[in-house]
Amino acid sequence: MEEEKIIEDVTNFIENKRISDLRKYLENINSADFPSILENIDDEKIIMVYRLLSKEKAAEVFVELEHDDQERLINCLTDKEIKNVMNEIFMDDAVDLIEEMPSNVVKRILANTKLEDRKIINELLKYPDDTAGSLMTTEFIDLKENMTVEKAFEVIKQKGLQKETVYNCYVLATDRKLLGVLDIKDLLVAETNQLVKEIMDTNVIEVQTLEDQEEVSKMFDKYDLVAIPVVDKENRLVGIITIDDAIDVMQEETSEDFELMAGITSTTDDSYFKTSVVSHAKSRILWLLLLMLSATITGTITTYFESAISALPILVAFMPMLMDTGGNCGSQTSTLIIRGLATDEISSKDLLKVIWKEMRVALMVGVILGIVNGIRVAIQYQNFLIAIVVAITLVLVVLAAKLIGGILPIIAKKVKLDPALMASPIITTIVDIFSVTVFFTLASLILKI
Amino acid sequence: MEEEKIIEDVTNFIENKRISDLRKYLENINSADFPSILENIDDEKIIMVYRLLSKEKAAEVFVELEHDDQERLINCLTDKEIKNVMNEIFMDDAVDLIEEMPSNVVKRILANTKLEDRKIINELLKYPDDTAGSLMTTEFIDLKENMTVEKAFEVIKQKGLQKETVYNCYVLATDRKLLGVLDIKDLLVAETNQLVKEIMDTNVIEVQTLEDQEEVSKMFDKYDLVAIPVVDKENRLVGIITIDDAIDVMQEETSEDFELMAGITSTTDDSYFKTSVVSHAKSRILWLLLLMLSATITGTITTYFESAISALPILVAFMPMLMDTGGNCGSQTSTLIIRGLATDEISSKDLLKVIWKEMRVALMVGVILGIVNGIRVAIQYQNFLIAIVVAITLVLVVLAAKLIGGILPIIAKKVKLDPALMASPIITTIVDIFSVTVFFTLASLILKI
Repeated sequence: MEEEKIIEDVTNFIENKRISDLRKYLENINSADFPSILENIDDEKIIMVYRLLSKEKAAEVFVELEHDDQERLINCLTDKEIKNVMNEIFMDDAVDLIEEMPSNVVKRILANTKLEDRKIINELLKYPDDTAGSLMTTEFIDLKENMTVEKAFEVIKQKGLQKETVYNCYVLATDRKLLGVLDIKDLLVAETNQLVKEIMDTNVIEVQTLEDQEEVSKMFDKYDLVAIPVVDKENRLVGIITIDDAIDVMQEETSEDFELMAGITSTTDDSYFKTSVVSHAKSRILWLLLLMLSATITGTITTYFESAISALPILVAFMPMLMDTGGNCGSQTSTLIIRGLATDEISSKDLLKVIWKEMRVALMVGVILGIVNGIRVAIQYQNFLIAIVVAITLVLVVLAAKLIGGILPIIAKKVKLDPALMASPIITTIVDIFSVTVFFTLASLILKI
Repeated sequence: MEEEKIIEDVTNFIENKRISDLRKYLENINSADFPSILENIDDEKIIMVYRLLSKEKAAEVFVELEHDDQERLINCLTDKEIKNVMNEIFMDDAVDLIEEMPSNVVKRILANTKLEDRKIINELLKYPDDTAGSLMTTEFIDLKENMTVEKAFEVIKQKGLQKETVYNCYVLATDRKLLGVLDIKDLLVAETNQLVKEIMDTNVIEVQTLEDQEEVSKMFDKYDLVAIPVVDKENRLVGIITIDDAIDVMQEETSEDFELMAGITSTTDDSYFKTSVVSHAKSRILWLLLLMLSATITGTITTYFESAISALPILVAFMPMLMDTGGNCGSQTSTLIIRGLATDEISSKDLLKVIWKEMRVALMVGVILGIVNGIRVAIQYQNFLIAIVVAITLVLVVLAAKLIGGILPIIAKKVKLDPALMASPIITTIVDIFSVTVFFTLASLILKI
């Protein structure tokens, strides 16, 4: 709602050529609202709107844009304007930008970046994707342990504006080793003549540059952090990661899990609409092919029971119900286990505990489903023996599905695979094989066909 | 690893009765690490360990514990100890605690809470679950617009320790209306004689008390906030929500989506292992029953084709492959759409765009799957006509699955249902009906049986 109002206002200002009003109006709009505003403005007017912004705002807005909009914008900007953006943005955003732009754009960006920043960018680009090093920025407040609180405030006053956060300050030795952390609250409530080392916290929660980004984001959640220091192997502070980037990682990792659990192997971080039809097809076809061919195993099993099917074609009518129920039971369990593993509520040591829990849940659920369906079959088909076969099969299928759904994600974790692979699609295919085999075997034995 | 080391150390200290060493050791452990430590210590020793903590630490640790551990602990604490905890913890945590404890424990807690805090707790308890009001705390820094920066620092120095955050300060009029927000950075880089109103940001991002908690957490992500002010209908500031609680909401909402998408209707926030077998069974049986009975529709459809099945039982062999592929195709799409709706990348206005995209993806994927499987069938069964039937059915099934998977979550959103309902289980069941009908109809027509 709010957003639509802004877009309407901006369009009105432009149409009525009230440019200086528009300039004032834009300064009061949060930079996070600009991407959707610019998306709704004609291409040729975007650069006009963008040029109305103050230097700081222009850089802030630039960082918020999607990569393809950033690219389009850069192609319209002068070298001086690019220089301004590169001067204002933080190093982690600069690295992100350079990683996503095509090489000709990268060349132009770097040509308009200060030498010292170019050096830092090159250092940061060396860290592998998805590590703490690739997420961090180098603009943090560093203090010395023998400074007074008063002196610390002076440092913050001088340098604060250029730093990504002042909420946490870092106390370094002369060799840049990390000695302690100060929450800004500790400084604010301290006496001005106290020394930094008297009030700093030396139990620092820190990460190494090569730590996995998912682990980093979990630490933010567990320890309620707003920033985390990143150190190299010699415990020298090389950068910090702030909470906004940690939240982006959480969202990204969650989306990846959702996709993997649905059998999608996405290679892009782009949104649904920005991803091309061909990319969508590519990221989906692999698992579909694999699962389709695996499902033919289940089909082949039915051919062993051809005579039973010819004799009693009604048996086929129970296949969809048995297969779907098995798949659903398995996915329920695997989803809970995958999520539990992702949030560290379940660990790979818990295999036996999970089996014991799922076995009891499965018996309870299986018996209810078996009884309900047995009664339905007995009434609908007036055939008590078929009802018995269906009911027993259901109990066994539910039991197998819940055990398979519980065990496979944990085993995947143990062998260093992503547990999210062992979700609905694979579980369903495996359980199908079990359901069909058990059903037709029981039917052949009990119904003597 | 780290954690196991701590548990070992603590156990050693206890066994060797090195109590004063243990006391020192515990003060240096982060309170977020205590829950897993206490879980690994014998029940009778927990209270001993807990009593070694300083007053502040004891309250911090208490807040981190799971609800059942909190309850056990309270039952061992003296009234004085409970009083200490209630004096130290923030109001949002106090409300959480009271909401989760059985009534006899609540009585004891309230009896040991200061009258003014009891009043605030009662006010907060009135806000419906899952609203901003139920998440907020009342301990924030409030400043006046005509204060100097110097005076503001005095206020923070005096009151800072009792406030949940000093990162953001709130400027209030005499009627407690919210006039502006100050990031602590703005205060730190300002001149001491400047007035608060000169440097405060008046474009405040705020929420109303009844705003949905999921929307609140999205605002934290979008605007990179560390705290958000909560106002009542008259725009009076009544509380703030901090980023740590917003992250908890994000995790909670994600887990809910995962569970709903797997057909689980969980009513508890407890972890996998803390949930009883009966609760697990209850939260799973509803959808299983519903879907099982829906799946019998697919079964009933096959009975219309009994003569075809009797004549050519091999047809049954293709059912699992067709049903699974349809289900997988549908879940891929519905997962992407549900996630896109959750992250606001897709809105309910995008129905036609989604249909257009999915149609093209489906044709591409469907034709590939159709050709691969057609060739397999032609070779394996040496029957060209059956291969044609299977291939055409596959293309149609993929198309239908992707459209149904794309459309249903958006329609759910439009009619104010949770889109996550329209995930794999339901989509699979619906697509099954389509697959089986199309397959046997085509087979009857083309194979003339």
